[in-house]
Amino acid sequence: MEIITSAKAMQQRALQLKKQGKSIGFAPTMGYLHEGHLKLVKQSLQHNDITVMSIFVNPLQFGPNEDFEAYPRDVERDKMLAENAGVNILYLPELSDMYPNELSFEINVTKRTDVLCGRSRPGHFNGVATVLIKLFNIILPTNVYFGMKDAQQVAVVDSLIKDFNFPIQLNPVDTEREEDGLARSSRNVYLSDEERNQAPHLYKGLQIASEAIKNGEVNPLNIIQMVEDYIKTNTNGKIDYIEILSFPELNPLNQINGKVIIALAVKFSKARLIDNIILDIHS
Amino acid sequence: MEIITSAKAMQQRALQLKKQGKSIGFAPTMGYLHEGHLKLVKQSLQHNDITVMSIFVNPLQFGPNEDFEAYPRDVERDKMLAENAGVNILYLPELSDMYPNELSFEINVTKRTDVLCGRSRPGHFNGVATVLIKLFNIILPTNVYFGMKDAQQVAVVDSLIKDFNFPIQLNPVDTEREEDGLARSSRNVYLSDEERNQAPHLYKGLQIASEAIKNGEVNPLNIIQMVEDYIKTNTNGKIDYIEILSFPELNPLNQINGKVIIALAVKFSKARLIDNIILDIHS
Repeated sequence: MEIITSAKAMQQRALQLKKQGKSIGFAPTMGYLHEGHLKLVKQSLQHNDITVMSIFVNPLQFGPNEDFEAYPRDVERDKMLAENAGVNILYLPELSDMYPNELSFEINVTKRTDVLCGRSRPGHFNGVATVLIKLFNIILPTNVYFGMKDAQQVAVVDSLIKDFNFPIQLNPVDTEREEDGLARSSRNVYLSDEERNQAPHLYKGLQIASEAIKNGEVNPLNIIQMVEDYIKTNTNGKIDYIEILSFPELNPLNQINGKVIIALAVKFSKARLIDNIILDIHS
Repeated sequence: MEIITSAKAMQQRALQLKKQGKSIGFAPTMGYLHEGHLKLVKQSLQHNDITVMSIFVNPLQFGPNEDFEAYPRDVERDKMLAENAGVNILYLPELSDMYPNELSFEINVTKRTDVLCGRSRPGHFNGVATVLIKLFNIILPTNVYFGMKDAQQVAVVDSLIKDFNFPIQLNPVDTEREEDGLARSSRNVYLSDEERNQAPHLYKGLQIASEAIKNGEVNPLNIIQMVEDYIKTNTNGKIDYIEILSFPELNPLNQINGKVIIALAVKFSKARLIDNIILDIHS
């Protein structure tokens, strides 16, 4: 596995690969790798000549009171996991390489951000969009792989690619889960033992909602109440949001119909967890 | 000459060229071509396998009270001129092809825009940056060519490419002038005969400034006063701005030293003209 740390060297390498007619699959990550990340790599390996993974904890997408400093990091372990997973090139930029000067531009995401994590984390998706434009131009991918756990991010990346005509195919990848259903996340490491035992109830709450909808419930408010009650009963977490929206447009719904996302965020003592499921309902 | 009107077809063609290892030179224009545009093409032809010109009057870079509707257009004549100049691919997108939906993103240029045309045309460079990100991704150029008449645009494109890591080389091209010194511009066609006779005094004013600086004048205020007096005496135009700044940073100067731009904008009855010169002064 090649390890590249400078933007210039990475871009040179990507240009060389493109000249050779190679397709490039790209999985952007913030590291502290888990099975969810490795699933992105696995899919990329199937469809591309070369698979690039980036590890970069992007300060621009963290709010002032968020966990940028505390975000878990273990680069040596990540290198081993990436290599074992079959990553061809690991791009590990320094902060000073990604942001050598103060930027002369601001990217504002103006749609799909007044809901879900966008509302709880103002500016978050602006930071995501900014770093992705940079990473896309440095790595020049044919395909990009994003996990569906961050469903709103997938929706924003979808419009980023379309609105700015990036010559890139977006590939959303299903959420990877622990055996008890908990969505894999780098932040799970910050759960206490008790919280770790409660955390699978997030997904169970979503499954209960899914069942109710499949059994004919069409009122989003009833479903939200049902999930809220379930989570309050079964965890000590503080509910940040539970929402049902159209997907990928992320518009509010009066009635559940078509492709919809049920998404939630719950704050535990040291970790805020998110999860979602997507349903296709034709009533 | 190939003519392409859809973003998808243009991008497919560009990807195909890249796969063949061809370099692509790109001259973005708003059409109504003149010698200045053809000079961009001439330079591109010298350094690239394939030269692409785009013609697109971008509504996003015009203010509500500006001349988007009145901007001169003559596509049939442009096609002939582009073909004669040696353009390989002319990209002529429809408005609905460039902006099929309302964008989900806003690009704000946060530096270098509180001076020169940025101050007189709020939002102008946001529109320029937005369309250029799109055009760069559609045409995938190796080299881009921009005229120095729009010096502030060159400075903004320089930071756009650097800040977002576009794999593109920027090539500024010297302003092309009429025999009497007037900078070539599509908007010159809107000058009355009398104004057309006065317009060369814009460049003469800049030349007088240049002479005075070369003769030792280091105070920007004195130079600006000198140019203002000259233009007021010799034209009926209304001065929008006369500024002396560092280039390409576009910072204000207490004393003229290093690489500097002297730039002006003057409004005539139906056309606002701009011009500038760049000097490298080592006192």
